[in-house]
Amino acid sequence: MRAATDVSVLVERYRAVRARSLALIAGLSAEDCAAQAMPEASPQKWHLAHTSWFFETFVIPAGAPYRSPDQRYRHLFNSYYQGIGPPYPRAQRGLVTRPSLAEVLAWRELVDDAMLRAIINGSVDAAMLELGLQHEQQHQELMRTDLLALMALNPLKPALRSVELPASPSARAPLRWLPVQGGVVRVGHAGDGFCFDNECPAHEWLIQPFEIASRLVTQREYLAFMDDGGYRDPLHWLAEGWDWVQAGRRCCPQYWWRGHGRDWSRYGLDGEHLLSDEERDAERDAPVAHLSYYEADAYARWAGARLPTEQEWEAAARVHADALQALFGACWQWTASAYAAYPGFRPLAGVAGEYNGKFMVNQQVLRGSSLYTPPGHARISYRNFLPAAATWQRSGLRLAR
Amino acid sequence: MRAATDVSVLVERYRAVRARSLALIAGLSAEDCAAQAMPEASPQKWHLAHTSWFFETFVIPAGAPYRSPDQRYRHLFNSYYQGIGPPYPRAQRGLVTRPSLAEVLAWRELVDDAMLRAIINGSVDAAMLELGLQHEQQHQELMRTDLLALMALNPLKPALRSVELPASPSARAPLRWLPVQGGVVRVGHAGDGFCFDNECPAHEWLIQPFEIASRLVTQREYLAFMDDGGYRDPLHWLAEGWDWVQAGRRCCPQYWWRGHGRDWSRYGLDGEHLLSDEERDAERDAPVAHLSYYEADAYARWAGARLPTEQEWEAAARVHADALQALFGACWQWTASAYAAYPGFRPLAGVAGEYNGKFMVNQQVLRGSSLYTPPGHARISYRNFLPAAATWQRSGLRLAR
Amino acid sequence: MRAATDVSVLVERYRAVRARSLALIAGLSAEDCAAQAMPEASPQKWHLAHTSWFFETFVIPAGAPYRSPDQRYRHLFNSYYQGIGPPYPRAQRGLVTRPSLAEVLAWRELVDDAMLRAIINGSVDAAMLELGLQHEQQHQELMRTDLLALMALNPLKPALRSVELPASPSARAPLRWLPVQGGVVRVGHAGDGFCFDNECPAHEWLIQPFEIASRLVTQREYLAFMDDGGYRDPLHWLAEGWDWVQAGRRCCPQYWWRGHGRDWSRYGLDGEHLLSDEERDAERDAPVAHLSYYEADAYARWAGARLPTEQEWEAAARVHADALQALFGACWQWTASAYAAYPGFRPLAGVAGEYNGKFMVNQQVLRGSSLYTPPGHARISYRNFLPAAATWQRSGLRLAR
Amino acid sequence: MRAATDVSVLVERYRAVRARSLALIAGLSAEDCAAQAMPEASPQKWHLAHTSWFFETFVIPAGAPYRSPDQRYRHLFNSYYQGIGPPYPRAQRGLVTRPSLAEVLAWRELVDDAMLRAIINGSVDAAMLELGLQHEQQHQELMRTDLLALMALNPLKPALRSVELPASPSARAPLRWLPVQGGVVRVGHAGDGFCFDNECPAHEWLIQPFEIASRLVTQREYLAFMDDGGYRDPLHWLAEGWDWVQAGRRCCPQYWWRGHGRDWSRYGLDGEHLLSDEERDAERDAPVAHLSYYEADAYARWAGARLPTEQEWEAAARVHADALQALFGACWQWTASAYAAYPGFRPLAGVAGEYNGKFMVNQQVLRGSSLYTPPGHARISYRNFLPAAATWQRSGLRLAR
Repeated sequence: MRAATDVSVLVERYRAVRARSLALIAGLSAEDCAAQAMPEASPQKWHLAHTSWFFETFVIPAGAPYRSPDQRYRHLFNSYYQGIGPPYPRAQRGLVTRPSLAEVLAWRELVDDAMLRAIINGSVDAAMLELGLQHEQQHQELMRTDLLALMALNPLKPALRSVELPASPSARAPLRWLPVQGGVVRVGHAGDGFCFDNECPAHEWLIQPFEIASRLVTQREYLAFMDDGGYRDPLHWLAEGWDWVQAGRRCCPQYWWRGHGRDWSRYGLDGEHLLSDEERDAERDAPVAHLSYYEADAYARWAGARLPTEQEWEAAARVHADALQALFGACWQWTASAYAAYPGFRPLAGVAGEYNGKFMVNQQVLRGSSLYTPPGHARISYRNFLPAAATWQRSGLRLAR
Repeated sequence: MRAATDVSVLVERYRAVRARSLALIAGLSAEDCAAQAMPEASPQKWHLAHTSWFFETFVIPAGAPYRSPDQRYRHLFNSYYQGIGPPYPRAQRGLVTRPSLAEVLAWRELVDDAMLRAIINGSVDAAMLELGLQHEQQHQELMRTDLLALMALNPLKPALRSVELPASPSARAPLRWLPVQGGVVRVGHAGDGFCFDNECPAHEWLIQPFEIASRLVTQREYLAFMDDGGYRDPLHWLAEGWDWVQAGRRCCPQYWWRGHGRDWSRYGLDGEHLLSDEERDAERDAPVAHLSYYEADAYARWAGARLPTEQEWEAAARVHADALQALFGACWQWTASAYAAYPGFRPLAGVAGEYNGKFMVNQQVLRGSSLYTPPGHARISYRNFLPAAATWQRSGLRLAR
Repeated sequence: MRAATDVSVLVERYRAVRARSLALIAGLSAEDCAAQAMPEASPQKWHLAHTSWFFETFVIPAGAPYRSPDQRYRHLFNSYYQGIGPPYPRAQRGLVTRPSLAEVLAWRELVDDAMLRAIINGSVDAAMLELGLQHEQQHQELMRTDLLALMALNPLKPALRSVELPASPSARAPLRWLPVQGGVVRVGHAGDGFCFDNECPAHEWLIQPFEIASRLVTQREYLAFMDDGGYRDPLHWLAEGWDWVQAGRRCCPQYWWRGHGRDWSRYGLDGEHLLSDEERDAERDAPVAHLSYYEADAYARWAGARLPTEQEWEAAARVHADALQALFGACWQWTASAYAAYPGFRPLAGVAGEYNGKFMVNQQVLRGSSLYTPPGHARISYRNFLPAAATWQRSGLRLAR
Repeated sequence: MRAATDVSVLVERYRAVRARSLALIAGLSAEDCAAQAMPEASPQKWHLAHTSWFFETFVIPAGAPYRSPDQRYRHLFNSYYQGIGPPYPRAQRGLVTRPSLAEVLAWRELVDDAMLRAIINGSVDAAMLELGLQHEQQHQELMRTDLLALMALNPLKPALRSVELPASPSARAPLRWLPVQGGVVRVGHAGDGFCFDNECPAHEWLIQPFEIASRLVTQREYLAFMDDGGYRDPLHWLAEGWDWVQAGRRCCPQYWWRGHGRDWSRYGLDGEHLLSDEERDAERDAPVAHLSYYEADAYARWAGARLPTEQEWEAAARVHADALQALFGACWQWTASAYAAYPGFRPLAGVAGEYNGKFMVNQQVLRGSSLYTPPGHARISYRNFLPAAATWQRSGLRLAR
């Protein structure tokens, strides 16, 4: 892990990343920021507090002139670092009406003061500073997906006009199959830039020849799967996926529903989008998102293809960087790879060692990045990971064969 | 059901009751008002909205110049009236960040305008108006208990200094056993004043001679039960109560906990109260509250007594109105009676008929009123009811034998 | 509680009751006797063991020449007597493949030897002996209902030809409303015969005038409720009942299902019975059974009537003993009364005091007896009780108004 | 997939495999064979029926003179083949008291007659025949582990003297670290013998140099982990593993418990084994078994090592076949690899295609074989797989680093 060391660059970068978190709650009320849609999703306020907690706990130097507004925040806003102590129960984050949003924002300012002072006087650990910023960027993506999970449960289906959302790129172009040669390829992060511990060490990997789709699967294509009885035939599905379909009576992706005219619609933070209308090409040709791994896998099997492994995805991304559409910026792309340690993996030293490694079971890797990923945060070696049943992230798919 | 008909009295009463609901959120933030501690407890904002919903749905005359700010509120703030349509899921009330508190307060004003106009022009049904006001008063009590349930889950244990709370009456006086003669007594509401349908019809009931305690069981007495192993001996408990103790690993009343010095404390909206300190007589002699029916019943059995039936309670309240302390205003008092229809009971006509009758199974009756009950809302024939496991209401006990 | 004291009568009665339990498993395999349909229902073998346990634990005199085949049976076959020690988990009774059925039957013989010796030498407590026999008779009814619960889950829908089942009485006669005068009536058991503690003390009760149906509600009538959308209109149902309907997707009584031709059938231990066939009058006119309290209550509301209280039922049974059909022997009859202590109730002294009293919450009383009740076990003051959601007992209803 | 074609060899092999299943229930009663410990474990009778079902459904030739005793067995004993139709609910297998064990055994004979006839007249598909036999062998292992799961829940802790159990090999020898060179290795099945589809195709894999332990982790070593607070320090555990420890209040492996003297014991089908006694070296030096993946992973981290990947395990097994103790026959060995398709994997054609592929998510691969694996069933390329929380199989661990 490396980080820039020029002070004014650091100051600017720190300010920009922190400011972006605040920008994300523009137009939201304190109420909007306090509620929690489900245990997996956190309130906006919690994200604003926890990212401050991270700097307070791991980055502000020991002797710095900083004093927490409340020692109990150390417990209250700990996400999962058992080395710090038992965290406050995740499922109750939406009950923390105090401290208020205003108090959390004031805390952010205290933390920012201490951080900026430490950056300027050179007492901050550059690697931990960068980790704190990357950490905050990860939470920025979650702020959007967790907000969507919340608003989608509101029967008023609010359209958040003040929320700036980049348009999802169209995938109207015909799908092309791009060949990738077999052989030994490099996997993982190398070079000077930042990466998370789980992208290391860079290593060699042997792959077989395969082909990868030039673009993501679209909502139009996914509708064809649905129309073909995709959710009714168990033979398309992993056994666990079929149980998931049955138990949740699933018949469409998350945030889709069928209106009175039997037409499919999709809810997004900018409101409702009609999907069944043949005329709405831009919408229908957008990549399908918010799929579980089960759905992505079932679609691929139905389509006579499969999901790429994460190593295949990375190899293809390196050799076809120009030809592959929407590698980044549209949807995270499920891979066939379970999340596991790279050969020779070592967690970060110290308490931050819990960051990534302890989740390496029962998760699937997703590659790329999404509409919600902050600018500059994505890279080819980046490994996102989610349980197979997760649907509240912007998770779509790219086929391989 | 009868109600006063003089317009200016009605206007004044309407205003006073509605204003009291607003007074209850003084000092609370929009966040405090939006969160939901558990499915059984509702957000403050929801109470403010639902009580307006009640007037909009049942009381504002059909042709009145009133227009709902949003037709969907009819669904969103319906509590349980299936005749109106399927209600919004109770467990998700804390997720409704929109409409905002401000919008709900604005809606209250619209409703108040329409209501006051209708009261003044005589177009309102006096009985339904009174029902709406009594309904709002019931929710005022819930606003306090639901707020307590929420704040108690906050590890900061906030002391709400702005919240006005009457002091709980002491019960230091020695317990006396007051005899009540057997014979036919009158049970239920008679006369001109308001009552709920479940208090009717007034009827005769045959009771056996018994004795009733002059005061409520105190926290001091309950500590003695605990110290005597009350929560460890299954023979004190109903079978279902013992399962409840085991499953919840219960060892004290709701909102009590043991600090580092092994001393018992109690959380209230005004902060923490030490219970183990021998010097704190005022606290220790206050009535024990937030007991489940199981706990009240187990305590009574341990004490060699029993709970009164609701008919016994009512008979005693009529004959010993002066001698019985804290009949009203301290704690609701569990009775041995399951909540059931009085002989000849008829629910209200129309949609409001769902108000009380449909809950007449698996609930126990509580009599009296509590610290949180609005002034003027209590009466001898009043029947409160709760599931046996409920602890978030101010439920205590008075012994009989 | 009183019991006959002539030794030869006692011996004969002991033998007859114990023999009847064995007769109930005629035609069943050891496998049939070992399985448990659900936590509430027990295996046949368990009933045979537990009834022996009861005699071993409570009735065989302390110094009698009896030695348990295994001291651990005292734990293993304890149902719910906490005074004896923590019972083996109820939900795991079907996992006890050892001791085998043969070993349990051998244990019965040991117990019988000891019991008969004690009866003959006069060392047995006559009241406890009678309690043991009555207890065994109660389990004889459960043996049938628990077996039905098990067989009904077998997709082969076995018809147990060897099982002797009395025919359910027809209720084809027109329903008549029999008036009962108001006034003070006697409730509870009086006289010399045996009764359970919960039937005592006999006491006076004040009832209002009412009418009671001359016969039970039939399957034909219940089909009319279903055809009228009974399971789809929440306004017929208690709130908790409607939740039960929705959660369980209920649309008919337990053990009913709809075949391919959309016809309703009912499963019984003697096999399938077609219900929709207009020609099958005998079946259609039989009393409807296996209803939950929620269903009985909903049917009554739909029919413009109500359930009688247990005191009303008892008063009617005393004054109209000849005119009321199927008071006994067809279905237990749900009453509107929650199961509670009679005024002055005292549990049995000693460990057997847990027999009845500790279940006095969240249960409804049923009166009468059923097809499965052993001969001689029923009486007017008998109080059966079940949770409102229970359907695996033969529970039907008789209307009142 | 290939299979021997000489008829008399096939007949002999068929008879031997089928006979071994019957031998496994020697000494068990019909009751023992009917009960189901938990949804994941099946009754002995079910295994005997389902393995017959497999031959009936997939192997007996279409026109053969065979007639099922009951067409409904096709549904009742289908495990998970959705292509055949919706299977009978897994969790209710213990409720199927009919057909009886005797009927299931008679069915086996019918199937055997038809199978032997088909083998002799050459009408059987040799590959499917072999698949049926391998399938039966897999169930033979499950018969033992499922029986253990059942007997372990019986408080009588039966010692099944009639059950033949090979002794677990000792692992007393000092642990040595055997080096394995990095490079491209062959993974998967090659050659003529039988294998399952998930072992194919054989392919090349690139591994890094590593070391593997010469023997399995012993119970003595695992006790040291426990004594060192292994179950109390979250930092040893995967996050999901720690949740599993907390939720299940785990403090030792499955089937271990602490007696009154605070000594650890282990239950096996042959009875209780004391573990804390320093003198019991043979027991203490036996490999630890019945670990979840979470426990195996936590132990490895505590020991400063890790689990091997399945490719590492296979490479080590090929180069150190002689030096590695207990590769087979003691415990299945957890690997760090999630169960996934090999590059180019194709499920079996037809309905048997559901055999392995549809479970390729949220499972970890185990390699080797166990005490319960039938002779001749193990091979180096064999891939067993289980959810991370599974403990009822004989799952232990071999360290790598």
